[in-house]
Amino acid sequence: MLALVPPGDRRIGMNPHGNGGRLRVRLELPRLADHEVDVPSPGGVTLSALEAAGRYLADVVEAGANRRRFLVACPDELESNKLGALLHVTGRRYLWPHSSDDSTLTPDGRVLEVLSEHQCQGWLQGYLLTGRHGVFPCYEAFVEIVDGMANQYAKFLKVARELPWRAPVSSFNYLLTSDGWRQEHNGYSHQGPGFINSMLNKKASVTRIYLPPDANCLLATLERCLTSTDSMNLVVCSKQPLPQWLSMPEARAHCAAGASTWTWASPRDDGDPDVVLAGAGTIPMIEVLAAAHLLREDLPDLRVRVVNVTDLLSLESPADHPHGLSDEEFRTLFTPDRPVIFFFHGYPSAIHQLVHHRPEPERFHVRGYIEEGTTTTPFDLLVANEASRYHLAVAALQRARGMASIGGRLVEEYHQRLLAHRRYILEHGVDPPEVRDWTWS
Amino acid sequence: MLALVPPGDRRIGMNPHGNGGRLRVRLELPRLADHEVDVPSPGGVTLSALEAAGRYLADVVEAGANRRRFLVACPDELESNKLGALLHVTGRRYLWPHSSDDSTLTPDGRVLEVLSEHQCQGWLQGYLLTGRHGVFPCYEAFVEIVDGMANQYAKFLKVARELPWRAPVSSFNYLLTSDGWRQEHNGYSHQGPGFINSMLNKKASVTRIYLPPDANCLLATLERCLTSTDSMNLVVCSKQPLPQWLSMPEARAHCAAGASTWTWASPRDDGDPDVVLAGAGTIPMIEVLAAAHLLREDLPDLRVRVVNVTDLLSLESPADHPHGLSDEEFRTLFTPDRPVIFFFHGYPSAIHQLVHHRPEPERFHVRGYIEEGTTTTPFDLLVANEASRYHLAVAALQRARGMASIGGRLVEEYHQRLLAHRRYILEHGVDPPEVRDWTWS
Repeated sequence: MLALVPPGDRRIGMNPHGNGGRLRVRLELPRLADHEVDVPSPGGVTLSALEAAGRYLADVVEAGANRRRFLVACPDELESNKLGALLHVTGRRYLWPHSSDDSTLTPDGRVLEVLSEHQCQGWLQGYLLTGRHGVFPCYEAFVEIVDGMANQYAKFLKVARELPWRAPVSSFNYLLTSDGWRQEHNGYSHQGPGFINSMLNKKASVTRIYLPPDANCLLATLERCLTSTDSMNLVVCSKQPLPQWLSMPEARAHCAAGASTWTWASPRDDGDPDVVLAGAGTIPMIEVLAAAHLLREDLPDLRVRVVNVTDLLSLESPADHPHGLSDEEFRTLFTPDRPVIFFFHGYPSAIHQLVHHRPEPERFHVRGYIEEGTTTTPFDLLVANEASRYHLAVAALQRARGMASIGGRLVEEYHQRLLAHRRYILEHGVDPPEVRDWTWS
Repeated sequence: MLALVPPGDRRIGMNPHGNGGRLRVRLELPRLADHEVDVPSPGGVTLSALEAAGRYLADVVEAGANRRRFLVACPDELESNKLGALLHVTGRRYLWPHSSDDSTLTPDGRVLEVLSEHQCQGWLQGYLLTGRHGVFPCYEAFVEIVDGMANQYAKFLKVARELPWRAPVSSFNYLLTSDGWRQEHNGYSHQGPGFINSMLNKKASVTRIYLPPDANCLLATLERCLTSTDSMNLVVCSKQPLPQWLSMPEARAHCAAGASTWTWASPRDDGDPDVVLAGAGTIPMIEVLAAAHLLREDLPDLRVRVVNVTDLLSLESPADHPHGLSDEEFRTLFTPDRPVIFFFHGYPSAIHQLVHHRPEPERFHVRGYIEEGTTTTPFDLLVANEASRYHLAVAALQRARGMASIGGRLVEEYHQRLLAHRRYILEHGVDPPEVRDWTWS
């Protein structure tokens, strides 16, 4: 019978139409240094990380022969996702005749834009499986629409990785662009970080989840995603202008580590802090830093360590995920036994699930999105989800050792400030200056 | 301005078209006693719980005026889901002309059958929101297709519950019918319990998750779901013929409790067991009982307690979910500090997440679906996911106190049996008699 099987490359599995990885050519990527966002001091500059990503992706399109092997499939307005820079170097693909009034429509455009998450998911899967590359920018709350398709594709990748004859294909890159913590005119319907949980259910060999805290980290993350294979990379980012924290060299080191202590934000950390304030995500990290700031001014003796987690799966045990920090690295970062106040971008359960196999997981006190708040001010949304800087500071005071007496006074004061802010927001419809104008110093 | 607002029932929100709960009339439900499955002894009879559910739902259709207020929206073949009994009392709704060859098509059928999960989800939402009732049977792995729609509907229910003027509507009832643990001819693509995790992300006021372990528990659960309002009820069940455990009175008491010790399976439990074996789901509970059976025969001195969890959210702290067992009930059920070997139907992370706020959560050692195994025998699928009776028994031996010496020998023996079974399965393509013919005694 085996004599009937055609030899070598004549077998179906060897056909490049079915094994497109054999045709894959690496993307030519621009130098990150040429895209570095200048950060004179932490928080010293405010800009949109996605606008920087848009300029980087525009250069990706222009580099070498990438025009023949790179696509952006986007169910939402590319501009509304702040990726408009792409349209300066390419167009939205449109094959039918169009009039001179139509702008940015071209038959060979590298952007496929149609308001159907299903269509974009399918398009990009097919494109990657034929040996090429791409990204899928999507509103965070609506990527869940393709949960079923993503599950099946993850199963395909898991099995494909187990077949030695299958050549690797480029990873599927999700770029979640409109996170629920900044609502603008949208409300409760536009809040939905659950895709992170779906990814956590999948095989560790396949899933990667990144929450770059600023523009340079996002660029370093994009470079990593665009060179990876046989994975599903979920990148959660913000399109709003936000404070920038790290230089490109710092961002590269931070992203390579997956998570690290931000020493410039931890002045009193002598290696044995009283409490660790950790954040994952852009908005959460702002609140974590603001909470550290509050505590530094109001309680100078409290030794606070500030940690950012940009590679979410670095939290998982290395036995459970290849990106997991070693137990020693984990203990060094979060201490062996001190309380950790963690503000996570998504549902708190994800962090509990990830640290379950780590030492003393109960010391992780997690705040995150708890399905509260709708169209309101950015700060009021944080308050509704009990995750504002004041909530984090209170949680730290209630758990750090020896804080009973002096901490109690501050806790009361912070509660009073929350009430005052609430009154201000109801009256003026914007956040109070103390919050609006806060900057790191 | 307010003078322009029409009075009372003339306001838009009071219009029954927009506030359908005002038209809601309770379903007339058949007596469960008339549908009780006779269980002479635990495991003494084998049948399909879904066939029993089909007969119950057929009676629901026939009862009183239910024909005007009850629908079954099903994206899969009703018969393949073992709910065919419904077609003896009603038809598949079809309005266009049809020939005499067409069977079970009627213009007023209570069954809407079309292979589009999206369409079924939308149909049933609209039907419930106009004050009526229904269920949505769906293959477990494919309900994730409507994850995005379910998220939005859960958000709607959460907000609707907060508006005093909105009358309650009937709950949305998911009936997951083809669980991944019994593959028949389907494979890896048909394994996907992730919808449970999606439900866990939603507001506690809205979500309910049930995994009835047998037919009588399923019927008691259906009665509860069909009388509830403003919730999303997820019921995970099996269509294959499986051993039955509880009489209807026992099932009612068990479902009311949410979780309980199965004393008949815990003969050596003197109130202070060495280890707790717990299960949630039909197939997991069979393996848990088989593991308890093994240990009872091979290690008569080991005091094993067998627990079943049918209301998954009874595991969560009462502070986090209204169905949560009190801390005292939880301690009484799982002991304050003994190891718990838990076989969960879905991804293990769900259990870790649920017990996070319970005492000593690390003592919960959870097995479940870990994205392994494809078309193979039922037992081989359990082995691939490291969740067979032998894996559970070994996990118990490795964690129960004072098992080091004698336990070690058994651990080795069980590993040998797993290897022998694997050889048998590869040779014969079916499970070995020891597994296939196992019954509780």
